[in-house]
Order: sequence, then C-alpha cells, then structure tokens
Amino acid sequence: MREVVVLGVGMTRFGKHPDKGLKELGTEAIWNAVEDANIPPKDIPIIYVANAMGQQLTELRGTIAQHVVSHAGFMGMPVINVENACSGGSTALRSCILEVASGNYDVAMAVGVEKMCIADTARSAAAMAFGTILGKFGFMFVGLYAMNLRRLMEKYGLTREHFAKVVVKNTKNGALNPYAQFRQPRTMEEILNSRVVSDPLTLLMCSTMADGGAAAIVTTRDKAAKYSSKTPITIAACELVSGTPTSADAVHVPIETRASRQAYEKAGVGPEDIDVVECHDAMAPAELLIYEELGLCGEGEAGRWIDEGKTEINGVVAVNPSGGLASKGHPVSATGLAQISEIVWQLRGEAGERQVPNAKIGMTENAGGWVMDDNAACAITILKK
Amino acid sequence: MREVVVLGVGMTRFGKHPDKGLKELGTEAIWNAVEDANIPPKDIPIIYVANAMGQQLTELRGTIAQHVVSHAGFMGMPVINVENACSGGSTALRSCILEVASGNYDVAMAVGVEKMCIADTARSAAAMAFGTILGKFGFMFVGLYAMNLRRLMEKYGLTREHFAKVVVKNTKNGALNPYAQFRQPRTMEEILNSRVVSDPLTLLMCSTMADGGAAAIVTTRDKAAKYSSKTPITIAACELVSGTPTSADAVHVPIETRASRQAYEKAGVGPEDIDVVECHDAMAPAELLIYEELGLCGEGEAGRWIDEGKTEINGVVAVNPSGGLASKGHPVSATGLAQISEIVWQLRGEAGERQVPNAKIGMTENAGGWVMDDNAACAITILKK
Repeated sequence: MREVVVLGVGMTRFGKHPDKGLKELGTEAIWNAVEDANIPPKDIPIIYVANAMGQQLTELRGTIAQHVVSHAGFMGMPVINVENACSGGSTALRSCILEVASGNYDVAMAVGVEKMCIADTARSAAAMAFGTILGKFGFMFVGLYAMNLRRLMEKYGLTREHFAKVVVKNTKNGALNPYAQFRQPRTMEEILNSRVVSDPLTLLMCSTMADGGAAAIVTTRDKAAKYSSKTPITIAACELVSGTPTSADAVHVPIETRASRQAYEKAGVGPEDIDVVECHDAMAPAELLIYEELGLCGEGEAGRWIDEGKTEINGVVAVNPSGGLASKGHPVSATGLAQISEIVWQLRGEAGERQVPNAKIGMTENAGGWVMDDNAACAITILKK
Repeated sequence: MREVVVLGVGMTRFGKHPDKGLKELGTEAIWNAVEDANIPPKDIPIIYVANAMGQQLTELRGTIAQHVVSHAGFMGMPVINVENACSGGSTALRSCILEVASGNYDVAMAVGVEKMCIADTARSAAAMAFGTILGKFGFMFVGLYAMNLRRLMEKYGLTREHFAKVVVKNTKNGALNPYAQFRQPRTMEEILNSRVVSDPLTLLMCSTMADGGAAAIVTTRDKAAKYSSKTPITIAACELVSGTPTSADAVHVPIETRASRQAYEKAGVGPEDIDVVECHDAMAPAELLIYEELGLCGEGEAGRWIDEGKTEINGVVAVNPSGGLASKGHPVSATGLAQISEIVWQLRGEAGERQVPNAKIGMTENAGGWVMDDNAACAITILKK
C-alpha cells in the first residue's frame, strides 16, 4: 500500500448558520480545502461525504453527498455517502485513504457536513436518539456520559472541579480558534454554577448542536509536491472499530483503547510520542476518561494530569487545542474532519495563537453512536509531520 | 490490485414482512450469505451495510449497520454505513472489493437492507422524494420514467405493447423465482388494462416498495478455495459514477452508458460477450432504454429486441431472469446485492427453473437517486465464471 498524505484541509466556522443549508456548508468546506490543497478541482476523481442528520432535519431525502458536491461544482465521478454517527467524518477519511493507498486513485476528498440548528430544536435532539430500548425512555448521550463520569468520581476520587478544569482549558483554547462556535473563556465558577444538565454535568461542560462542514484532500507524497508547497502531513494510521458487548464476567476493553492500540501499532508509535490530540469530548470532562483510554496517562492519573496542566497547549501533550467539541460545537459528521483539520494546521505550524510548540505527531479520536452497550464506532487517526 | 471473487451470496424473499424489521431482514440475508460462503463468521473482518430509508421509516436513527450486524452476531470490527439511494447495495459491494483487492483485508461482506412496508404508505413514498425543486411539486420517479418512455415512443415508434411485453417476460421469469415478491405471470391484456399510474406506465409496469435484505461475501481466489467448493465468481469490474449536468448545446451521455463503458473496459469484454444481465427496471419498460444504454442493442433496436425475444432466458442475452424489480419488488438498498446474488446463481448454474443456459459472463446495472437533471449514482458490475 502507498503512503498517503493530507494535501489540504478546510472547514466552515461551526455554529448557527441560519442562512446556510447542507449544500452551502459543504461547498464552503470543500472549496476551503481545495484552496488549501492548491489542487485543480478536475484532479479530484472521487469524493466521500459523511452526513448523519440530513434525512431527518433537512429537505434532502438521500444521496446528500451528490446534492452537496454538485452544488460545489463536482459531478460525474464516484460519489459515496457514508454515515457512522459522530465518527462519520473519520470514516469518510478512512475510505479516501484506502482509495489512494491502494492505487485505485491518486487523489480523494473526504467531506463531513451537518445541518442541526433548525427552528425546532426538539426535532434535532430526537434525531440523535439512540434507536435502542434505552433511547425510548429518554436516555440520551448526556446521561450516558454522566454515568461514566460518576463512575470515575467514585473510582478515582475525581471531583466536579477536575471536570470544570477541562472546560477552563478548552474554552481558553477555543477563544483562540476562529472556527469555534463559542469563543469566550470560562471560569471555574461560571462552569460549576451553570445549570445542571445531568449530574455531574453542567451546561458549560456539554457540547452543543451546530451547523458546519469540514473536508480533507488526500494524495500520495509524490503527488503532494506537485500541487502544494505546504508540508504534506503523513497519515500514519486511521483505524476504525465498532463496539463490543459487555458481560459481567469479562473485562470490557473500551472502544477507544482498542482503536488506539491498533493505530499505535500501525503507526509504529506509542502514546508517549504524541504531541497533540484532538479528542471527542462531546461532554468536556470525558476528556479525562479519554486520557486513560488512549494511554496518554496511566490508570487513575487523569485528575493529576488536569491539575498539573499536562494537557495545556504548552503541556506534555496538548489535548484539544482547538477548544474541543464544547467550544467548537459538534456538527456530528463534520467533527472528525474538523479534528483532522486542526491537527494538520498544528503539524504545519499554522495554528496561530493556539499553536502547540514543536508539534510533530498528532492524533484524533472520533467516537460515535450507541449500539447495545458500547459506542457504535470509534476511529483513531495518527498524523505525522 | 488482487483479483476478487464472490464467495457467497444470500437474500431474503423480497416483499411485505410485517413481522420483520431492519435487524431481522439484515440478519437473514447475512446468515444466508455466510452459509452459502461456508465461511466461519470470525473470518469476516469488515462489513459495509447500505440502507437508505431507515432513518425516516424505522426507529433506528443512525449507525443502522451496527444495529443490524450486532443483531446478527457481528461486533468489534470496522462497520461502515453507506447510502447511494437505489445504488446503495452495489456501492457497499464496491467498497468491499476495494478492501480485498488492495490487500487491506482478505474477506469483506456487503449488506443491503431496507424496511419500506410500514402502516403509512404515504410516509414511505415521501421518504423517496427527491430533495429537489421538482420533488416539491410531487414530481416523483414514476413521472420521470414516464417522460423518458414517451420520448422513446416518439423517437423510435415504440408502443405500449412493447412496454407490456417487457412485463410479460419479467413476470414469467419472476414466477420462477422463490425470492420474488410477485410470482404471477401476467398477460398483455392484464398489463395494458391495469390502472394508469403515469401515462404510458400502468400499475403492473411499476416496481413496488418492499422489505428485504441481500448480502455478498467477497475474497481472493486463493482464499475462496479454502472455504467453499462452489465456483468462485470473479468480479471483473464494479464501476460507480455519478450524474452529469445536461445542457441544450451538448450531447448528454446517459449515466448507464458512462458507467458501462468504464466497466467493459476494465473487464476487457464488450456488450456482445454478456450472457445475462440484471438491470434496474424500477419501471419495467425502462429495460428497453437500458438495452441501448448498455450497448446490448443498437440505437432504436430495443423494440425489435423485445419483439424477437432476444432478452428471454433462452435469448441472445437474458435480461432480468430474476423477474427484475417489477416482479421482485424494490427494497431500495437491497436491490443491487439481490442483482449480484442472481448473477452469481446464474453463473454457478444454481438458478433452477430460471437458469440461463451456459451463462459465463453476467452484468448488473444498478442506478439510483436524482440530483439536478440526472441519476445521482449508477454502478455497473461485471461478473465472470
């Protein structure tokens, strides 16, 4: 298989875009990526588009990819719609990597786009319901995260203050990100005193619905040099797994752990080599859980890590320098490719005020959906300068 | 790239299954394919599932693939949801071929599944609306087909009788297919006298909504011998394209023609080499259009072809020996893999009473969706004994 690099990335600002639908959001992300890649559009021979909510929340009833890319001016080539809940963007990227790595095509474009901010917010919330028995009783993701966090509190003595510190860090980072939905740094007091959504989670700890699009164009190292003078970013691994059942008698390996172990092995690196991580903190405090699941810190060390600022932009490993989902907003299928965009900018040294010093290896963790008793999907991507 | 073969196929009967949802339909198709392939389930390391309507018509709100395959007992591996309207099944197959051809995996499974027969038929019909301006005015696929057929009538002198003859042939074939929704052969009189849906289309010329699932397992030739004593069926080409814009000044090459030319070139065969075709006759008379678009007959010859029985099971090239969509029913994302199943059975000599004599090379044509002024997607697959 050939080595694949990211040639260009692009995204829209995440947030409420009352004047833009899926086509407009997708087009903006696509053309930002095309411009960043400095590639003639005719050299893009295949496109994957991830979308999760369009059928339920917009007028488009299928082949949303084709509606979006034809609006952006792309027609005729193979166009494939993928969905994997919040992991959709990474899933589209994984497919593009395979197209190029295999030699099937020299270039491929992955797009993730979502329109969630509609007049009736309850419809958007319902569209994210699980499709499980639990979902019927109103048990949604925020409740699931809350239960996991309560477990952490009991097991490792983590406190609400630890959780709030994650949000302090991420909103500080997000304030420096022009693509973020929320750009106001928050204090411990504001976070802890905001309305409880599902104890221990308060409003400012939770990510929000957002409209947005993100895109990435991949190619081979040789071709990259032909198009762009920017540093090509090597995709060292992009591993996708689905959930596994739990049983009372067996140790359940978290989906993030399984995916990241595969990715570390494929990339030939370990967690200690990672300089910057964009992780799927749909509820910001879940970052602490993810530190462990990705092997960044040892068991029970997450609280100390956030206390000691190890995941700050200038820390041991910067986590969510973009501000994470709680600052950026979370337009389901666009999130994974926004994470990729951020890591590419960080590794190129283009992240401006939120630049992680000397970042050479970056990682994204992008999990989504819920089936039986685990996430439906998790994708881990490791990128190298 | 490695040569890829179909190891096993399976499907449910298409039709109304009031007692079965997506999970049950998908599971039945999956296990039929697993049994046909004689493969231990643990040797299937990646699964693609196509579904188009589930978000709108069932309780599942995303990651439908994971819901379906975990119900069938598959968890942990990469599971990817794809959608490409009526071409979804072929799109899932194309991805599986790439996984195996590239060496990424040795085995992959493609599944297409759809639940359309719900209490409120109007909801199912609305779910298939275009997402275009035209769709808002109630302009649906049946109208589009009718307009194309009227054009054929004026251009080549085709008559309603020609159209009815296609249905006579296909319902005769479908009567021999245990997987078909409708198994009653129809006479010219019945077809022409059935209710007009959109002139010149009468009720018996149109395919119906159906519930159903279909699956195919692909691998390499070497691996195939390890699992099964059945004839491995080589996938000589599986080409996917999207629609192109039309303009008054330019000749518009039909999407089926573009896709089939690519497929013929890749497979190293021509239309004259094809023994058996399963084509996407969502309205049965459209078969006549497709004869030309695939190059099976010359321009304006389709009427003579159906008059002379050239596409009967014992004809020059058997078209829709399964009965086609009008007999089988059309569960959107399952249709493409049902076409593949039929061609595999035909090439293996397992098609029973509807067996095409001495079939060595087969083709499927699977088109779907509507964007701007062309189909959103079309996939052509060429299979060889």
